[in-house]
Amino acid sequence: MAEPNGSPHRYDLRIYYEDTDAGGIVYYANYLAYAERARAEMLRELGVESSRLMRDNNVVLAVRWCSVDYLRSAVLDDHLVIETSLQRLGGATLEVTQIVRRQEIDLVRIDLKLGCVSLCGGAARLPLAVREKLGGHLNSNRS
Amino acid sequence: MAEPNGSPHRYDLRIYYEDTDAGGIVYYANYLAYAERARAEMLRELGVESSRLMRDNNVVLAVRWCSVDYLRSAVLDDHLVIETSLQRLGGATLEVTQIVRRQEIDLVRIDLKLGCVSLCGGAARLPLAVREKLGGHLNSNRS
Amino acid sequence: MAEPNGSPHRYDLRIYYEDTDAGGIVYYANYLAYAERARAEMLRELGVESSRLMRDNNVVLAVRWCSVDYLRSAVLDDHLVIETSLQRLGGATLEVTQIVRRQEIDLVRIDLKLGCVSLCGGAARLPLAVREKLGGHLNSNRS
Amino acid sequence: MAEPNGSPHRYDLRIYYEDTDAGGIVYYANYLAYAERARAEMLRELGVESSRLMRDNNVVLAVRWCSVDYLRSAVLDDHLVIETSLQRLGGATLEVTQIVRRQEIDLVRIDLKLGCVSLCGGAARLPLAVREKLGGHLNSNRS
Repeated sequence: MAEPNGSPHRYDLRIYYEDTDAGGIVYYANYLAYAERARAEMLRELGVESSRLMRDNNVVLAVRWCSVDYLRSAVLDDHLVIETSLQRLGGATLEVTQIVRRQEIDLVRIDLKLGCVSLCGGAARLPLAVREKLGGHLNSNRS
Repeated sequence: MAEPNGSPHRYDLRIYYEDTDAGGIVYYANYLAYAERARAEMLRELGVESSRLMRDNNVVLAVRWCSVDYLRSAVLDDHLVIETSLQRLGGATLEVTQIVRRQEIDLVRIDLKLGCVSLCGGAARLPLAVREKLGGHLNSNRS
Repeated sequence: MAEPNGSPHRYDLRIYYEDTDAGGIVYYANYLAYAERARAEMLRELGVESSRLMRDNNVVLAVRWCSVDYLRSAVLDDHLVIETSLQRLGGATLEVTQIVRRQEIDLVRIDLKLGCVSLCGGAARLPLAVREKLGGHLNSNRS
Repeated sequence: MAEPNGSPHRYDLRIYYEDTDAGGIVYYANYLAYAERARAEMLRELGVESSRLMRDNNVVLAVRWCSVDYLRSAVLDDHLVIETSLQRLGGATLEVTQIVRRQEIDLVRIDLKLGCVSLCGGAARLPLAVREKLGGHLNSNRS
């Protein structure tokens, strides 16, 4: 839940065969997919759904940049938690940090910059309602 | 939950961008991944985990055959339920039917035959403990 | 190449980490993705591209049904070939058989029925130009 | 081909439905999978295969960190090229830059640090034969 005081949103995740590779661990690209699931759930709890953003506002939130630190590996049947913190909120962009944990151990840290993009092409401002909903969830202790 | 009387196991699923394609719908191969998640959760509730099967029994449950009927499409942000029914249980094989639903509408029906396979190669018998746990969950009204 | 006499189209494929799972083999759902790549290349060689079908004809070719036999497993670094044969061609549907091979050994056999679907919803007839291009490539020795 | 003078290795790629999402573009996590395909082919041309590294040397090359700049989007049916340059080579690590291009336009830039990891856990030195093969392909004009 995205708490009003800006504490991180938590998303639970189970690791299945589809997530793993022949090295016996979770394939490195998949963490970006999990991170997107976690961001989608954080937004959904604020009342923002991607499909409605496309339909009603003609925009999508696109990742412009990300950086991923792979600290430890996850394996089959692991139960993971992703903590998502909103670090910065601009008129057309947002910055997010996401930590993938198994119990209290950090496995992967992802930092991202997202931009609001018009489906017709080009940057767009964040819809005001989205901006206001996100505004209350800025992380006050930036990591 | 896999009910003792053999009623189907239910697994909940949300559709994210990663699941969809440029046609605006869920990519057809992904339903097989969702089906595997649902089977893994059905087994986990019976106390059977894939990682322990590999480690303790040196076997995996592998799909030998499947048939998929695509009736309707799922789209971004859909909430789906997968109903999994165990149809037949042999010494080394099992047959499963899985229905992907949105609300009460059937979207995809998957029939599968799985076999127990030794990590050293070749077929293997289902571990007795697994067979007994599954035995109580056979579907009595085969569809 | 889709030969004029209806001999199968051949598509080459290499197996990477992303394709494999913790069981050390190619994940079962991925063969459907490879099959789609092979169908796309067969169509591209006939001058039919999915993106143009969407843009110019407002239709997509969607899989309505498939059946998959998993005979043997593929593993990391395997070089595979997919043979695609057009088995039947209707006004709005086509039937295709695809065999995934490693050297001369059959690994997976996929049978599919595809239907032409309007982006506005509902079935649609195959564009005439597509139908004519496909017509010359029907498999004469149906398997 | 990884040229002896250290010019980038080129890998060709086609975009299929499986690669795209409901926003009509390639899903952002997938570029990391393409990058891995390109690195695997660069290594294969030098005579290094991941499956043999695992079997003969008991090691894998794992991504420890990456950074991804998303400059422009790829779409269905695009033909892309990935240029891979080896930037730095240590005893147990390597640094790589990969540029995803459509014709002469840069779409995505990926910087990675990889480490050699023992299948038994823990860091490992790069096998000497691998290190020597890579040594001749260091990029002399670091970008």
